[in-house]
Amino acid sequence: MPESSDSRDGRAPAPSHGMPPRIHLIEVGPRDGFQMESQFVPTELKVRTIDRLAQSGVAEIEAVSFVHPQVIPQMRDAEAVMQTIERKRGVRYSALVPNLRGAERALRAEVDALHVVIAVTETYNRRNVGMDVAESVAHLEAIVAAADTVPVAVPVTATLAVAFGCPFEGQPRVDRVVQLARRLVDAGVDQVGLADTAGLGHPPLLRTIVRAVQTAVPDRVPRLHLHDTRGLGIANALAAMEVGVTTFDTSFGGLGGCPIMHGASGNVATEDLVNLCNEIGIATDVDLDVVRSVSRELEQFLGRHLPSHVLQSGTRAELLEANRD
Amino acid sequence: MPESSDSRDGRAPAPSHGMPPRIHLIEVGPRDGFQMESQFVPTELKVRTIDRLAQSGVAEIEAVSFVHPQVIPQMRDAEAVMQTIERKRGVRYSALVPNLRGAERALRAEVDALHVVIAVTETYNRRNVGMDVAESVAHLEAIVAAADTVPVAVPVTATLAVAFGCPFEGQPRVDRVVQLARRLVDAGVDQVGLADTAGLGHPPLLRTIVRAVQTAVPDRVPRLHLHDTRGLGIANALAAMEVGVTTFDTSFGGLGGCPIMHGASGNVATEDLVNLCNEIGIATDVDLDVVRSVSRELEQFLGRHLPSHVLQSGTRAELLEANRD
Repeated sequence: MPESSDSRDGRAPAPSHGMPPRIHLIEVGPRDGFQMESQFVPTELKVRTIDRLAQSGVAEIEAVSFVHPQVIPQMRDAEAVMQTIERKRGVRYSALVPNLRGAERALRAEVDALHVVIAVTETYNRRNVGMDVAESVAHLEAIVAAADTVPVAVPVTATLAVAFGCPFEGQPRVDRVVQLARRLVDAGVDQVGLADTAGLGHPPLLRTIVRAVQTAVPDRVPRLHLHDTRGLGIANALAAMEVGVTTFDTSFGGLGGCPIMHGASGNVATEDLVNLCNEIGIATDVDLDVVRSVSRELEQFLGRHLPSHVLQSGTRAELLEANRD
Repeated sequence: MPESSDSRDGRAPAPSHGMPPRIHLIEVGPRDGFQMESQFVPTELKVRTIDRLAQSGVAEIEAVSFVHPQVIPQMRDAEAVMQTIERKRGVRYSALVPNLRGAERALRAEVDALHVVIAVTETYNRRNVGMDVAESVAHLEAIVAAADTVPVAVPVTATLAVAFGCPFEGQPRVDRVVQLARRLVDAGVDQVGLADTAGLGHPPLLRTIVRAVQTAVPDRVPRLHLHDTRGLGIANALAAMEVGVTTFDTSFGGLGGCPIMHGASGNVATEDLVNLCNEIGIATDVDLDVVRSVSRELEQFLGRHLPSHVLQSGTRAELLEANRD
């Protein structure tokens, strides 16, 4: 090894700058990613994808959504997917539900957790689920009640969509986001999420809104759902970690988008956030190789590259290996 | 406008968190971008690209490199390009030169500034310019001397390549980077650059190395050249701004790469950094529309999409416009 080199210098031995020592990823590719694909992903490929992702070390997989099959035809096999996957011990298999009827289907399918999305703006919520925000909150209350009646109570997360900018109404006021976060907690949710659905968040805005929500509902540390639409996904994730966020939705390969908005693009890629965390000494417990093998299989099925950078470029160690004589 | 919205909330009125009020971009697409294309970009398209970029408000364009035409055939028309472009007042037209002979060609072509790249590691430097680092520094001294002999002295920047990680030797020691930065200043350069040539930098590493160089050569604030290979380009630019860096190389559309390394990819896209700065209240003086029109013309010529996110997704304002009923 030449004297100018020291491979250890590239990795922080411990997280710096007040970063958390560990973050938790929720793999949302099977739900947020697949729902955006026009080509129907066969049930068996969905199942294999979920089963292989479960081997990656990730603690939760958002496996399906229970929506009306005419709204999202890609998810019409949600029951079959949930019935066929192998439930790996230690992995939580969750489902997105838009309303009480979806939650009832999900509970019958024995999901481990429910995820409800309510938009911060009325326009987005109506277009997304055909209800105004108050109706969605009423559904959420009924969903929480239903989730408590099953033999083992099922936790409920509610995420505020377009919290960092709405494609229809612009930037929501911070006090509107805070007020809705309080309503979610009053409705009985176990966790509050904030989604940058339109990819309009940037680090200063994100820090402002996350801190306001943390102050308002300190016992429900927000989970973040970030899209990389304007190239800020990873910068936003870093900014969120700096203010104490430790739970992130990511999708393998950077799959994802939004079915009701022009100009949307994928989630922060699992591979890219895991690679960054590996580099700066933050534990994720997720095995990059497993995630990339899942992404590569889907690339073959879809016949196109997925947007994850690290999927295409490889890691630091692989770069050194590839350039070895 | 619904009461929940306030479009001003999305933009910080003034830069926050100790960020600089203004940064300076050096548009390197015509050099770092074009050199990576296997298809020869006709001289007239190069000239039109540079002339249109000069209308974007950018203060410096790295227009060409004066390298041996057998090494980089794409740049074989460097003299013709420099002779044909319209020299816009207030814009600095610079050239990359690998050695004294290239600098002499550049000075005859009346460039406004010279840019020399010297790698931090011996292996990278030998593969890049066929010399060891000491020979490159000797060339740099001769180049600085030559640049002083022309009627109007030409400023010289020297950039340290692979400062944040080398594909052949791994992570250079910080003291090696600092020692070389001092040698560049001793050689008489006007500005020191640091390049993340292999896209291996991450925010904590970047802050450590930038601060060390700032301390060692405080009057030559480093210019940063970042590649987005692992999706960290924008996060690294933000981290650099946080520690006071105000000069960045970017390329329109996110063009770029590295001719001597596997797994390289483009520079931070001009569009993406300008959009971020517009959002968070940092002035760049660069007109996004002009840059995007240049990128779109090149996309048509190349027959493929360029990697810039904002080129594809548009801005916040455009998203609102596109989703208006």
